[in-house]
Amino acid sequence: MQRNWPHPDIEADMARLRKQGPLVHCLTNFVAAGFTANVLLALGASPAMVIAPQEAADFSARAGAVLINLGTITAASAEAMEQAAASATGAGTPWVLDPVAVGVLAFRSGVAASLLRHRPAVIRGNASEILALAGAQGGGKGVDSTAESSAAVDAARTLAGRTGAVVAVSGATDYVTDGAAVVEIAGGHAIMTRVVGTGCALGALIAAFLGADVPPLRAATAASAVFAHAAERAAAQSRGPGSFAVAFLDELSCIGTTERIC
Amino acid sequence: MQRNWPHPDIEADMARLRKQGPLVHCLTNFVAAGFTANVLLALGASPAMVIAPQEAADFSARAGAVLINLGTITAASAEAMEQAAASATGAGTPWVLDPVAVGVLAFRSGVAASLLRHRPAVIRGNASEILALAGAQGGGKGVDSTAESSAAVDAARTLAGRTGAVVAVSGATDYVTDGAAVVEIAGGHAIMTRVVGTGCALGALIAAFLGADVPPLRAATAASAVFAHAAERAAAQSRGPGSFAVAFLDELSCIGTTERIC
Amino acid sequence: MQRNWPHPDIEADMARLRKQGPLVHCLTNFVAAGFTANVLLALGASPAMVIAPQEAADFSARAGAVLINLGTITAASAEAMEQAAASATGAGTPWVLDPVAVGVLAFRSGVAASLLRHRPAVIRGNASEILALAGAQGGGKGVDSTAESSAAVDAARTLAGRTGAVVAVSGATDYVTDGAAVVEIAGGHAIMTRVVGTGCALGALIAAFLGADVPPLRAATAASAVFAHAAERAAAQSRGPGSFAVAFLDELSCIGTTERIC
Repeated sequence: MQRNWPHPDIEADMARLRKQGPLVHCLTNFVAAGFTANVLLALGASPAMVIAPQEAADFSARAGAVLINLGTITAASAEAMEQAAASATGAGTPWVLDPVAVGVLAFRSGVAASLLRHRPAVIRGNASEILALAGAQGGGKGVDSTAESSAAVDAARTLAGRTGAVVAVSGATDYVTDGAAVVEIAGGHAIMTRVVGTGCALGALIAAFLGADVPPLRAATAASAVFAHAAERAAAQSRGPGSFAVAFLDELSCIGTTERIC
Repeated sequence: MQRNWPHPDIEADMARLRKQGPLVHCLTNFVAAGFTANVLLALGASPAMVIAPQEAADFSARAGAVLINLGTITAASAEAMEQAAASATGAGTPWVLDPVAVGVLAFRSGVAASLLRHRPAVIRGNASEILALAGAQGGGKGVDSTAESSAAVDAARTLAGRTGAVVAVSGATDYVTDGAAVVEIAGGHAIMTRVVGTGCALGALIAAFLGADVPPLRAATAASAVFAHAAERAAAQSRGPGSFAVAFLDELSCIGTTERIC
Repeated sequence: MQRNWPHPDIEADMARLRKQGPLVHCLTNFVAAGFTANVLLALGASPAMVIAPQEAADFSARAGAVLINLGTITAASAEAMEQAAASATGAGTPWVLDPVAVGVLAFRSGVAASLLRHRPAVIRGNASEILALAGAQGGGKGVDSTAESSAAVDAARTLAGRTGAVVAVSGATDYVTDGAAVVEIAGGHAIMTRVVGTGCALGALIAAFLGADVPPLRAATAASAVFAHAAERAAAQSRGPGSFAVAFLDELSCIGTTERIC
């Protein structure tokens, strides 16, 4: 069921993810929350969405990793995110920032800037979001990018250098950089852009690898490669975005294990 | 893949929707949000859910069209909806009102009345909701209608005349009216009532057509016809509501294009 | 399509559920809301999610039954839950408490304790949650249990005795008790733990049976048995958690009826 992975550590990292089954605290948008949880469950992680400011800091300190996704932020959830990020960093818990639609709207751009002070381990976005966060230029079309991922590689390196985070740019080809090395992950399938939440779930999967003690550059690389692999296989057996989403979860559940029904 | 559409403009309107891929700002309930986004993506539109009062007005002015659905409103989201509606109207951006469960609950009935002042281009609801909004009689059973759609046609015409909106009544047969003409769209399948969010997604699709510069009466007609067509085809290959929902998205992705995997 | 049910009343209870189609007011988390609604719709109930404090009390009094699930609580939704529970009890409407992650986080543990004063008809949780609510020991791993369901049977009996509620413990084997009798429901499939919201939807289904005037012990038993039956059949035709979730809804739609497309 495994292919020859383009990066040698991925098989070991997947085994670690399945074995540890890390608790991933997701502060994410309500549009992609169900799909995100199902992606993590398919790969053996244990997702939990806890969003109240009264609980976010406490829960982040107990989790293996934290995902903060700005998709449907409100003032209340932005406060919870701030506390979760501070708590995670204080506890040494790695966290991922997914700056959805940053650069398009002033409120969330301010939230993202504030969150960056808490030093995410990984920042994952599309090209428009990474360009905006790096200060290079304006945002995308709503939550969709208006630029190719390759156009954001320089901005990603700059952003990585400035923040200390690994930066992952998603697109037809994914790029992951720590400011020095740039890893390129090809593959996947265009149908992914017609299923809501695939980018959000990728951010969550990066967090899951971090929660299994995989270092940031490897975590972001492994997550992209796993997604590309499952997407290619799922697309080959699908008739459209509905059956693709179903097959994608099935394929994810087969990666790194021989124990499941598949 | 296309059938002989019952209304001559639908093929051209679908082509326009695919070509323009309008950004649709959805202020909608969290139950149907994922499915709604997937319906819009399957048809080539670009959905984005932005719900904070701090962002709603700004984002509505940038969108091609706006959907306001009262399903899971709160005081905060009602404020965002008010601002989004005002902003949309100010910017000349068409918007759709989906008055979920209006007539059943006083709070949302007040919100709906207030929103109507901002002149939606289209109002879409089930018979009970349209009857309630027109002042004809009380509401339904929760979010479900207790009346046949045909029983709300007169109320729909009255409501259209009073508000200037096109009014769409959903049911076994859909009716769309601008107060003068009444268009009837038959077809679809009863299984749609056993999948959550089909009505909500229909409202979103009307917004998508509006965002592609299709006039309101045609936009509401095209959305209903596209749904009926995809539902008939999907039901013929389904075993129940789970497989229907999957096949429905696949079928939607095939309408108006020959480019996709299907 | 029906098997020989392990409990003699289930066939009659399913018929009652399909016939009455009760309105189930769900105050539940946004991760599982869509799946929960689809489960209820597949079995003939009429779900509606109304979450604003301004509407919750009013709507609960009109519903056949109420579900209160703490998954993604906030201060505002906790207030709505408090009002809904009080209103339901005042109106004689049965309600179900699903104390997600109680024992892990102080805020929701306080909310749960407060809600218990309004006397739920049924409490449904995993072993860690029931143990925590009974005061027996600490909580689980996020929203997942760290104990076998059998380990919580004594705690469930104690909790039932103290609260007057029927208590349902979910796991590989489900246990339902009113403090005296303990009903054991075997079956189901391990893949259910890899699909988000199956436990949440089970709580909602218990509420649906209550809304069809099935007494609490029978309601919780029937819901577990229906889930186990559908899960076994669905797992036999699935390749992983994606196709399982689809088949599970299809199978649910076939139980207790010969009228549907299946």
